[in-house]
Amino acid sequence: MKDTFYAYIERLQDTITSKLEEVDGKAKFQEDLWKRAEGGGGRTRVIENGNVFEKGGVNISAVHGELPEVLRKQFGVEEGNFFACGLSLVLHPINPFVPTVHANWRYFEMYDSKGEIVTQWFGGGQDLTPYYLFDEDAVHFHSVCKEACDKHDESFYPKFKETCDNYFWNAHRNEARGIGGLFFDYLKENEEFSIQDRYKFVTEVGNSFLNSYVPIVEKRKAIEYQKEHKDWQEVRRGRYVEFNLVHDRGTLFGLKTNGRIESILMSLPPVVQWKYNHHPEENSEEAKLLSVLATPKQWIQ
Amino acid sequence: MKDTFYAYIERLQDTITSKLEEVDGKAKFQEDLWKRAEGGGGRTRVIENGNVFEKGGVNISAVHGELPEVLRKQFGVEEGNFFACGLSLVLHPINPFVPTVHANWRYFEMYDSKGEIVTQWFGGGQDLTPYYLFDEDAVHFHSVCKEACDKHDESFYPKFKETCDNYFWNAHRNEARGIGGLFFDYLKENEEFSIQDRYKFVTEVGNSFLNSYVPIVEKRKAIEYQKEHKDWQEVRRGRYVEFNLVHDRGTLFGLKTNGRIESILMSLPPVVQWKYNHHPEENSEEAKLLSVLATPKQWIQ
Repeated sequence: MKDTFYAYIERLQDTITSKLEEVDGKAKFQEDLWKRAEGGGGRTRVIENGNVFEKGGVNISAVHGELPEVLRKQFGVEEGNFFACGLSLVLHPINPFVPTVHANWRYFEMYDSKGEIVTQWFGGGQDLTPYYLFDEDAVHFHSVCKEACDKHDESFYPKFKETCDNYFWNAHRNEARGIGGLFFDYLKENEEFSIQDRYKFVTEVGNSFLNSYVPIVEKRKAIEYQKEHKDWQEVRRGRYVEFNLVHDRGTLFGLKTNGRIESILMSLPPVVQWKYNHHPEENSEEAKLLSVLATPKQWIQ
Repeated sequence: MKDTFYAYIERLQDTITSKLEEVDGKAKFQEDLWKRAEGGGGRTRVIENGNVFEKGGVNISAVHGELPEVLRKQFGVEEGNFFACGLSLVLHPINPFVPTVHANWRYFEMYDSKGEIVTQWFGGGQDLTPYYLFDEDAVHFHSVCKEACDKHDESFYPKFKETCDNYFWNAHRNEARGIGGLFFDYLKENEEFSIQDRYKFVTEVGNSFLNSYVPIVEKRKAIEYQKEHKDWQEVRRGRYVEFNLVHDRGTLFGLKTNGRIESILMSLPPVVQWKYNHHPEENSEEAKLLSVLATPKQWIQ
């Protein structure tokens, strides 16, 4: 399974970066290959200063070796070896009317002392962070997520949508990071689903990504905007930074286990503002976004 | 002691904000009074968009009540009441040749069920974060710190300087946040020093603050700079954000114990950039700063 999934994310990275370069029309992804001292490495692809994308990364990595201490504690095991691979992406568009998007699909294996697989699972998801909210965009994004889920099990979309709302919650601000999407973890084989079924589900979701996001970009990328819209985007990007550095388990895991720092922190936006005690005007478009982020919404009835 | 120290930080806040307004010559501090639901509150003063200061805060607070869970765990006690007060300041200048400064002086008391003081201590310090390094500024800042320390005990400066270098270490970047200063904590009474001695020491340090920083601001605030200098400042401010959100115990403590979020996060810089894998040119002024941050230096022989 690990080779199959790694080959999949290699192809998916190519598909996604080609399409995004086409959408951008100017900037190209810059590729950096890196190795991890303890085993494995990755292929980081970053785009900067494009027509459409101000900054973004679409990275794959596959790492293996002895379980780091933080994972031994988490899994309650004294020793063991692991393999983990995945694709992570974050895109920060220039135009404040185009949302930021994040996605990640990953696979994990743990072995006993004989090298036999003890446990294996998939995880991941995708979520959208608009600065100005177009309901139809949120509905489109969630519809594509739901469609991919429904092909596998009708319980998946409501469950993984709720998990996503809970996970991307900026607790210290008492608001959601964005309008959600899907988040799932520890998708293991069980009586109902084989690990093969899990693979088919996760790759279905991965394959749906471009269709969930690109139509929104195409629709909003040419909207005219003023400095005040850009300022609002940069202030909201501050919340994105706060979530990633204070709450995001993936980021903190990477920072504390000797991941490649520039690949992990490619998720941080290019330009960010923090204004003291900033509140948008009542009944403005900015205030409308905040009211939706205060209580995650059902986008599909 | 608590009333005495609180009265001190009230006066010190006035002294510092008046002087900084004079130095700035344009912007005035905006004051916000706030209350904490569980007991106490604070007086936040923020300056924005000045001639000299792009953003900064000089805040005092005094909070009390039942020990929050996170403190009960930390101190290994099942219950108890506490009182804590302090002054915290962070100043982010406009001109990239003027360093950012942070300072904090605080006092803590813990009580038993009869309301008797079980333990009490002082903590705090001040540290400097330049974007372009003038050795003489670092020497000046450390000299003022050392002078304040030496009046009380010659062991203080070397000890608190080292503690500061260790504390303000951005571990995931393997570099110091800045060029240090002083950091001390749990200054309790002991055979050598009464709590009154501790008070005299901490207020000595607090009183030395303006003299440690203002002469540097005056000397550097009119240096002409280009966009590339401002870009570098904004990239380095990203490291400041990373330290405060990932590593700083004070910030994380505030975020997790229902502190006033806008008072805590006033420390974040006004405009920040994250560029992918950014490295300054060899032998540049920017590279010189990084080489000093890689290994904390003895500024005073």
